[in-house]
This record gives sequence, C-alpha cells and structure tokens, in this order.
Amino acid sequence: MTRLDVTAVGNALVDVIARADDAFLAEQHITKASYDMIDETQAHALYAVMGPGQEVSGGSAANTVACIASLGGTSGFIGRVRNDQLGDVFAHDIRAQGVEFATDAATQGPSTGRCMVLVSPDGERTMRTYLGIAPDITAADIDGTLIARSQVFYIEGYLWNAPETKQSLVMGIQVAHRTGNRAALTLSDTFCVNMYRDEFNELIDNHIDILFANEHEIMALTQSKDFDSAVAAMRGRCDIMALTRSEKGAVILAGDESFTVAAEHVTKVVDATGAGDAYAAGFLAGLTRGHAMAECGQMGAIAAAEVISHIGARPLVGLAGLVKARLG
Amino acid sequence: MTRLDVTAVGNALVDVIARADDAFLAEQHITKASYDMIDETQAHALYAVMGPGQEVSGGSAANTVACIASLGGTSGFIGRVRNDQLGDVFAHDIRAQGVEFATDAATQGPSTGRCMVLVSPDGERTMRTYLGIAPDITAADIDGTLIARSQVFYIEGYLWNAPETKQSLVMGIQVAHRTGNRAALTLSDTFCVNMYRDEFNELIDNHIDILFANEHEIMALTQSKDFDSAVAAMRGRCDIMALTRSEKGAVILAGDESFTVAAEHVTKVVDATGAGDAYAAGFLAGLTRGHAMAECGQMGAIAAAEVISHIGARPLVGLAGLVKARLG
Repeated sequence: MTRLDVTAVGNALVDVIARADDAFLAEQHITKASYDMIDETQAHALYAVMGPGQEVSGGSAANTVACIASLGGTSGFIGRVRNDQLGDVFAHDIRAQGVEFATDAATQGPSTGRCMVLVSPDGERTMRTYLGIAPDITAADIDGTLIARSQVFYIEGYLWNAPETKQSLVMGIQVAHRTGNRAALTLSDTFCVNMYRDEFNELIDNHIDILFANEHEIMALTQSKDFDSAVAAMRGRCDIMALTRSEKGAVILAGDESFTVAAEHVTKVVDATGAGDAYAAGFLAGLTRGHAMAECGQMGAIAAAEVISHIGARPLVGLAGLVKARLG
Repeated sequence: MTRLDVTAVGNALVDVIARADDAFLAEQHITKASYDMIDETQAHALYAVMGPGQEVSGGSAANTVACIASLGGTSGFIGRVRNDQLGDVFAHDIRAQGVEFATDAATQGPSTGRCMVLVSPDGERTMRTYLGIAPDITAADIDGTLIARSQVFYIEGYLWNAPETKQSLVMGIQVAHRTGNRAALTLSDTFCVNMYRDEFNELIDNHIDILFANEHEIMALTQSKDFDSAVAAMRGRCDIMALTRSEKGAVILAGDESFTVAAEHVTKVVDATGAGDAYAAGFLAGLTRGHAMAECGQMGAIAAAEVISHIGARPLVGLAGLVKARLG
C-alpha cells in the first residue's frame, strides 16, 4: 500500500478565465472580488458577455493536490466530472500533474462544473461558479482505501452543502482518524462561512485537526470585528491553524505557540486565483514531511507567490525547485 | 452594408497548450518545431502522455482575424465547429473578440478540432492537429455576402485539402474579385507546401493578390536552396508578398519595389505559436487602412511580438494601443 501525503475532496471545476475591467463588473452589477454560485442559465448569460477566455483546470481542493504533486509530494483527489470534453480536460490535467484521481465520471446529469474567473487589471479576481455535476458526491465516492493511505484528508468548505455530501465528508474524516491520519478543512469563502457558521464551528471543534482560513473567513466564523480578536477566539480549537492575510503574511497557531510568517515578495500579482489553495499545499507538503511550523508557512507562501504571478490557479513551474532554491 | 477589413476562412481549432521539454519530444519520437496532422486515436494517445494543459481558441486564420479585431479593425470568420463544449469555447472567444462568426456548428460528425501545442523551454512550439469537423467546409459555407463586404478574403493553406473545399475556396476568391476586393493566402506550413506545391503555384499565379509565407515555406514553394533565390523566383508573381524570417524580420515585395522590415525586439519568446498569424493581421490591418508597405510590415512585426511574448496565439492586450504607442 503506497502512502500518500494528502487526499482531497472538492468540487471538480474547469476555470474559464477572462480579463475584465472595473467598468465591465459595474455594468454587470458584479461586486469586485466577490464569489457566488450561479445556475446554468446565468452561466450562459455571463459567458455570452465575457471577453475571450482561456480554460484551465481548477477547483480549490483540486488545485491544492495539484500543487502538492508539483512540490514533489504524493496526493489523491475525490471529485466528480461528467463524461464531457471539460470533464476530460479536468481528469487529464490532474492526472498529468501526478495526482491519483479515480472518481468515475458521471454518464448523465449536469455537465462538468466551471468557474468563470474575471481577472481585474490589478490581479484581483471575481468568481462566478456553475457547479454542474461537481456537488454530486455521495458515500460511495468517499474512497476509504485512498483516505486510509493518506496522512491528511483535506476537505474544501465549498463542498459543504447537500446533506448527503456532508454525511459522506464526516464519514471520510472518521476513516482518516481510525486509520491514524489527520483531517484538514479550508473554510473556502466568507460566503460558505456565513451560510454554515454553526455547522463549521461544530465540525472544527469535533472533527478537524488542521484548519486553513483567510482573515475574512476567520473573522466571519468567529464574528469578530478584527483579526486579532478572531485569532484569540480560535486559539486551542484545532491542533494546527494557518490563517492567511494576503501580502501581510500568515499567522500559524499550533497548540500554545503561534508563528507569524511573512508573505513572499511578488513583483506583480497577475491573477490572485488559487493563492489560498497553493498556500495550503505548501503548508501541508511541509507538515507531512515533518518540517517545523514556520517552515511549513514559508513553503505555503512560496507556492502562493508562484501561482499569483501568472494567469491560472495551478503552478506553471515545478514548485519543488522553487522551494529548494528558496529554503535549501 | 457594413464594410469589413478582412474575412478569413480556416480550420476552427481549440489549442491545447502544454509545456514539453526536449526529452519528452525525443521519447515520443516527435521532431521539435514540426507540424503534423494526427487522427483521433493518435490525439487521445498524445493527450494521455502530455502534461497539464490550458485550452485557448486557436486556428491560424481565426487567430489572424482575432488579431485584426484587437488592432481596431473589422473582420469575419468562416470555419466549422461541432455543437460541443470546445465548439462553444471557439465560438465564444472569436465573437467576444469582436469577429463576425456565423458558420453553423455541425450537429453530427467528428468533434471540434484541436491542436496539441507542445511549447519548449526556448519558446519553440511543436504542433499535432486533430482536425475533427474543421475541414468540413463546402460551397454552402462560403458566405458570399460576407466576402463581398470585405476588402480582403484571406485563406489559410492548412485548409487546402479536400477537393470540394478547394473548389469552394476558389469560388470565394471569385466572389471577392467580382466585388472589387482582394484575395490573400498564407502558405501555412512547409508540410502544406510540399503536399500541394503545384496547386499552390497555380493558385498564386492565377488567383491570389496578397501572399504570406515564412522563409521555409517560400523556399519549399520555389524549391530554392536559399532565401534570396526564393525571393528572386517570386518577384512579380503577386501584387504583394510578405515573406517573414522570424527574428531576421521580413521582406515585402510590392510590384518592382521591395522593403526589408526589422523584427520588433522581444525580451523573451515564451511561445512562438501564432507569430505568423499575428504578422498577417498587422500587415493586413495596415494595408486595409492604406498605410505604406513598410508601415504595414511594422504593424505585422508589432502584433507578432506581442503574441510570442506569452502562452497562446491570440493577443492578451489590445494591439491597437501597442501600434499607437509604437508608431503614433
């Protein structure tokens, strides 16, 4: 039985990335930097007015495991596509990156999910997701063997929605714990936190060992007015918490200890999509190799810096080489 | 009746772009910088071993008219996709760029064509094209109204293949000429020239007003051992010929006159895909606005320089602004 560093479960999406200036967002009544779900009709309507795009495999947790592979780690992915062209693209890209992906493509139902990513001239991104078949994750998909083989079972908050999916995710966490592994969660977006605050709080307190959140999400979760209050409220609730603050770096809480790790210098933020996903990958790659907390944080920052320096949420160069050059 | 600068006909393709080093090309017995057609089985086999990709609309003549729109010109496109997801992507992207595209998507037959583009670390690209439904262009598709409205009817050599398509293209040229417009051809690739040398020579001598070729193609067409001999052999055969030589610039022949125009400086060639397509666009944008030959050549060089500075064959910034900044 080959061991894996991380197996993740999340929405399997293809990103449709287009440039959009502030005037376009205003015309479309879209709040810059916001995230929202849209239905198929809305997706068609938005696509019809968007500029020329490029299609790149995405999905938050899928990006994370792709980055882990790029960091030289081993990873698996659970997520659903349709047997359509975008589904083929998703499956090809994640496997070509070296990730184990064995969830069957659906042969009926909605098409493969896609995320319309509108990238502003300043690199900020605004996302509208048509989930398609992606949320169709049931107990049968939570591959216990894959989870048992993995040091960390990683869940994206975006997937926390349908009752059957939630039960399946908790079942996956139980498998991880019974087989001596750990469970990680990313809060994903304030949108998710505001919708499922109580459930996320319960999940964190009773099931999660490693938590990822950005400052907006953790403030929303704890209903705090500032970041420091949120940190104080969270202390001790998970074994490890990595709380990211974009260019202000990140705060890592581990038991009684806390570490502040600076962000990596980036010449120009081209597209912020996937920054949090890459951070989680770098952090987990460090953690599963037994690195010290601060170094895990640095690895997260290095991975995030690469991903935001170009269009698309997955790395364009091998992250393992970057980490080696930076940390030795 | 709104006038257009250029209407082009060509293979409607989506590019699947992935990085590939020399070792990968050697393993796959693929000659670096080569172009070849592959069937569906070969396409699946190559895709299975290729690295993670990004999908961007392509097709040589389609890239050219997309660049013309980006240059502030007006353009149309004739080409065939299937009613599948990649066909939707192609149609969206070309329309979103401002190109008139009205060819019906096929509801049966092969899927939308795609071009696997393997980009080497030095920016060179190696292409393997699965044409799918793209060559399915018949007389019914050669929209006479669109051609009559356009100053230039532009044909890509890649499309010169099936007898019915060839007849349809000649019919399109006749429409252009009878309505007081001009016909342009790009030789596309030495692969095409070697296959159809006699037919291309006949087409150029009897039907074509404006010819685009790179040095390899024009040497193959004239079976010359060096570029200067090829130029000497071509003189007087078309009204205008633009013969490109990558970083060595281009030679333009117009009647008895000839002009040598330098290439634009490029800091780093990231992906050479689409250089010739963009060059033709810049040149034709200049020509249809009545610019002098040397300035048409400069506009071609500026457009090509933008396109090779990033992944993908279509411009990422408005070319009109670049030309204005450079030429005033």
